[in-house]
Amino acid sequence: MLSKSEIKYIQSLFQKKFRDTENCYLAEGPKIVDEALKTPGVTVKKVWALEQWIQIHAVLHPQTDITAVAAFELEKISQLKTPNEVVALIEKPPHNSAPDCRTSLVLALDGIQDPGNLGTIVRIADWFGVPGIVCSLDCADVYNSKVVQATMGSLFRIPVIYAGLSAWLQDQNEVPVYGAVLDGTPLGKSAPATSGVLVIGNESKGIRKEVTACITEKITIERIGGAESLNAAVATGILLSHLKL
Amino acid sequence: MLSKSEIKYIQSLFQKKFRDTENCYLAEGPKIVDEALKTPGVTVKKVWALEQWIQIHAVLHPQTDITAVAAFELEKISQLKTPNEVVALIEKPPHNSAPDCRTSLVLALDGIQDPGNLGTIVRIADWFGVPGIVCSLDCADVYNSKVVQATMGSLFRIPVIYAGLSAWLQDQNEVPVYGAVLDGTPLGKSAPATSGVLVIGNESKGIRKEVTACITEKITIERIGGAESLNAAVATGILLSHLKL
Repeated sequence: MLSKSEIKYIQSLFQKKFRDTENCYLAEGPKIVDEALKTPGVTVKKVWALEQWIQIHAVLHPQTDITAVAAFELEKISQLKTPNEVVALIEKPPHNSAPDCRTSLVLALDGIQDPGNLGTIVRIADWFGVPGIVCSLDCADVYNSKVVQATMGSLFRIPVIYAGLSAWLQDQNEVPVYGAVLDGTPLGKSAPATSGVLVIGNESKGIRKEVTACITEKITIERIGGAESLNAAVATGILLSHLKL
Repeated sequence: MLSKSEIKYIQSLFQKKFRDTENCYLAEGPKIVDEALKTPGVTVKKVWALEQWIQIHAVLHPQTDITAVAAFELEKISQLKTPNEVVALIEKPPHNSAPDCRTSLVLALDGIQDPGNLGTIVRIADWFGVPGIVCSLDCADVYNSKVVQATMGSLFRIPVIYAGLSAWLQDQNEVPVYGAVLDGTPLGKSAPATSGVLVIGNESKGIRKEVTACITEKITIERIGGAESLNAAVATGILLSHLKL
């Protein structure tokens, strides 16, 4: 059973400003909550779940604070169209330091505003073993529920920090900075990257001017057909696969 | 001004069975409708639009049947959360023949059910100059409004047919059939493909058994990090970029 104030508290976390002040966020559904519970270093503060979920999972996580809720209650605290058994309250990771781009290839996102794209990019970064992501301050909030869902659990493994991107890039001395532009080296001819930064630009505006100025290795995903552009997450996958494999 | 029966007719096209019997579909928003109007071979039967759209576009398309509607009417015939100026009724292309996989690399989709994924894949195919797509019968309908939106106009350029996939593949004699599996040749080592078929599997189940049996060139997108899988559209982009560039 949920109290009114508890419902109100959970719903407040639908908004970024309350996630920021409370330093926590929500994740939903058995798959992603299970991933949170079993990932070392992820602090799950509380879980609200239907009886059917509790019967299977409670015994596996005896230390976790779990509250049984009815379906109509789950609906109130869920942000999914079809609520899915369980909602977890998770502590944001302790302030992440920026990933080290002198020893491996790091991702930098310049104005990725679509939550689905951002989440998918975190998942791709996880697949290709990227040690962390630096987001410009105008990227979507990585703790937004749509982003959390789209990461499919990769958010629990990949540190994400926010920074003024051109200033941060200028601080990274003598590492290659890769970016996709229209007149760069064809992707098929680019050498693998063992360190540095790969910059991904905004869905419609691309990489902003000040950030483009920091790019040292211009690459181009050659277009053979008629499409005007590629989705930002798809471009990230293509670029990382060529630079990492 | 829209009549009740006209609204009812347009709304009927939200469903696949009526799109099939009427042999047409809907597209929305200035960008995609503009693309439809200017693509040779695409028959736009009717357009419903706000005055602001008509003032700019009507003069460019004097042959097009355009009806002015009010914002509250557009809302009734739109499938977007925020209706966007214009809805077009478009004739499905004449029955497409299957693309020729003896002269170029063709895509085959095995159970791609998420409309956003399907649309994004059509857009990727268009970028990489794929001449056509063969969908298994249980793929999403490419004329579903969410798919149409996600193709960003590429649907007007890329022929898509539906077929029983394993039977169709068996009919393609002596062309290489590429597919991503867990134990194939690492992607970085695969040679470019100038002909044949690239099979993409379902979002969660992968490529079904009968279709896997048709694969002659097994390839693997090597995983370096922790993510369990890649999104189907992202995988398509990665595979096509390595096989085509």
